[in-house]
Amino acid sequence: MEKETARIEAFSDGVFAIAITLLILEVKVPPPGSGDLTAQLLKQWPSYVSFVISFAFIGIMWINHHRLFSHIKRSDNTLMLLNLLLLLGVCVVPYPTAVLAQHLGSGGQKPAALLYQGTYFVIAIFFNLLWGHVNKKELGDKNNETAGKISAQYAVGPLSYLACLLLVWISVPASLALNVVLAIFYALPPQRASAVIGRRD
Amino acid sequence: MEKETARIEAFSDGVFAIAITLLILEVKVPPPGSGDLTAQLLKQWPSYVSFVISFAFIGIMWINHHRLFSHIKRSDNTLMLLNLLLLLGVCVVPYPTAVLAQHLGSGGQKPAALLYQGTYFVIAIFFNLLWGHVNKKELGDKNNETAGKISAQYAVGPLSYLACLLLVWISVPASLALNVVLAIFYALPPQRASAVIGRRD
Amino acid sequence: MEKETARIEAFSDGVFAIAITLLILEVKVPPPGSGDLTAQLLKQWPSYVSFVISFAFIGIMWINHHRLFSHIKRSDNTLMLLNLLLLLGVCVVPYPTAVLAQHLGSGGQKPAALLYQGTYFVIAIFFNLLWGHVNKKELGDKNNETAGKISAQYAVGPLSYLACLLLVWISVPASLALNVVLAIFYALPPQRASAVIGRRD
Amino acid sequence: MEKETARIEAFSDGVFAIAITLLILEVKVPPPGSGDLTAQLLKQWPSYVSFVISFAFIGIMWINHHRLFSHIKRSDNTLMLLNLLLLLGVCVVPYPTAVLAQHLGSGGQKPAALLYQGTYFVIAIFFNLLWGHVNKKELGDKNNETAGKISAQYAVGPLSYLACLLLVWISVPASLALNVVLAIFYALPPQRASAVIGRRD
Repeated sequence: MEKETARIEAFSDGVFAIAITLLILEVKVPPPGSGDLTAQLLKQWPSYVSFVISFAFIGIMWINHHRLFSHIKRSDNTLMLLNLLLLLGVCVVPYPTAVLAQHLGSGGQKPAALLYQGTYFVIAIFFNLLWGHVNKKELGDKNNETAGKISAQYAVGPLSYLACLLLVWISVPASLALNVVLAIFYALPPQRASAVIGRRD
Repeated sequence: MEKETARIEAFSDGVFAIAITLLILEVKVPPPGSGDLTAQLLKQWPSYVSFVISFAFIGIMWINHHRLFSHIKRSDNTLMLLNLLLLLGVCVVPYPTAVLAQHLGSGGQKPAALLYQGTYFVIAIFFNLLWGHVNKKELGDKNNETAGKISAQYAVGPLSYLACLLLVWISVPASLALNVVLAIFYALPPQRASAVIGRRD
Repeated sequence: MEKETARIEAFSDGVFAIAITLLILEVKVPPPGSGDLTAQLLKQWPSYVSFVISFAFIGIMWINHHRLFSHIKRSDNTLMLLNLLLLLGVCVVPYPTAVLAQHLGSGGQKPAALLYQGTYFVIAIFFNLLWGHVNKKELGDKNNETAGKISAQYAVGPLSYLACLLLVWISVPASLALNVVLAIFYALPPQRASAVIGRRD
Repeated sequence: MEKETARIEAFSDGVFAIAITLLILEVKVPPPGSGDLTAQLLKQWPSYVSFVISFAFIGIMWINHHRLFSHIKRSDNTLMLLNLLLLLGVCVVPYPTAVLAQHLGSGGQKPAALLYQGTYFVIAIFFNLLWGHVNKKELGDKNNETAGKISAQYAVGPLSYLACLLLVWISVPASLALNVVLAIFYALPPQRASAVIGRRD
């Protein structure tokens, strides 16, 4: 069955790689004749901010997907469907990124940020569904330490992205800053991350 | 010859992964200054509906492609050409999806839905051609049970997508709903799917 | 060194898969409110023709790339650079395809077709450079029969695409038709192809 | 741990392949009715120049990434993050390429070239960070000859791309020409490259 997992990983790698690379298409080129180019480029800071946060999110989601699949030995139909659900979320990311890029700093900033953070909240839930399935099936009996640490790190995912979402009503910049902090947290290996959230083993 | 199949799978995975990810590029961002962003985003429901149905179709087509190739041991020229024909269909999907996204709920809804369902009907035929070739070559003598179940599941493909296509003349929403039902049916593993269509082994 | 070739193939597969899938982005969606959608869709026949010819070209070029690499055991720097040159040609294809799609049947048809066929002529030369390097290095001493057959098939490549290019001055449709015939010729396995061109072994 | 490196390479190959193929999307098609097509196509020389330089840069960066990973046996978290940082740079390339394509030869040429060369300067730094990590970890004790040669070749990277960047203030064409020379230099295998920069072993 090893070959099956290999193809799921290859397909997922493809989707992650394309979604992360398509992000740049949403950063628009200032057309010639629209004034000083340097000023035009600087005015596009919302595009750069959105691009970098989304790049970090997808990149670090890929690292976690990679960690997750290193625990999977057997493939099954539920795994394929839950993985497809996660990929649906990842594929969608360029859209809220583009919406945020065009509306950050203007009137539509709040709904744009809600869509953006809401997407990440839903992806965090999808990732937990996938992890829950893998955990139950692959590691259920062993209940080993690494699995526990990873579970702890992922369990806080939906809650913290929900916090990001709610923070939009108070402050869009603070909400985006929290998003960056979360990306850094998930970039940590599970051992260190569980130390951060004070989990004892 | 195993290596040859590996590269066909890698190329196919790439095409599936890109086609499924490009779908999001067709969901257009409401430009700033066009009124309340929330209302603008809600008005784009046809784009979201088209995106999700096409995502499900390509994703589940990939799962079936994956199942199909797990039965293939040897590669040949006909396999490569029939696979290329299937990939032609998959690559085309973002186009009818975009046409449907822009015309669903407006005057051009019927021709847009015909193009959309017609594409899926043709892809279902291509998939059956590929399966027929593999079945004859790889499993011809054995005539085994799994192959029979898969054949039964795929044989209904072109007919049911033809039903989708014909249903467009009566009701576009009903036709799209049937498309979703078919996606769920093909997401089932062959064993369960053959039970649904009442096949006895 | 086997691993090196594997990564070159993986990178090439990615480029072929993306270039072939991006082609569909150049088929434009008729905007709502521009009249009867069916008529609008039919008017876009140049886009469909360009898409299908380019899809066949890239797809069959991939099949030949695949055949070529099945003969390569060792990787070297020249191989990587010549392969990169071929990929440059493949990456460019969506551009002349889009130019042809927008100008076929209108005043700019001739320069558009020249750009299109010229691109294929250059790619055929690049492919021969790559094949020449592989042939000399991997099969030089053996001078075996298969290599001879493949050489014969590829040697006619630049010449026949040059014929396509020159035919543009006489008739654009005839030139495109010859392109399709060439694609079918290169889809044949080397044994049959060399029979077509009357080569004796 | 070999499998982990394999997936990092697969993901990186995907990102490189997509970034290099997306470049062509920025070469715009002259719309019908805008005058003689041949003249319109020739007027787009800045797009072609930008495309070819960026294609060479990404392609040769991929060759070097490939060489680098052939030295890596173990994967770790820092490697994944530094690799992600490099991929961030690679993903960005289509943007400055498009900016340069639209502004080369017009008023905004200087800021466009600064953005373009600045991006390459930053990518060269990211590549050195990655190489430094690999060098210390994998080859630290051995201090072998090949590693020394590669280090020498890469150490000149940020400095020479800084020279490209500074040259923009004097002459944009000279700066782009130097960029092409650098691409050729990095296309050389490490043995020859170190000979070029006069390093004794």
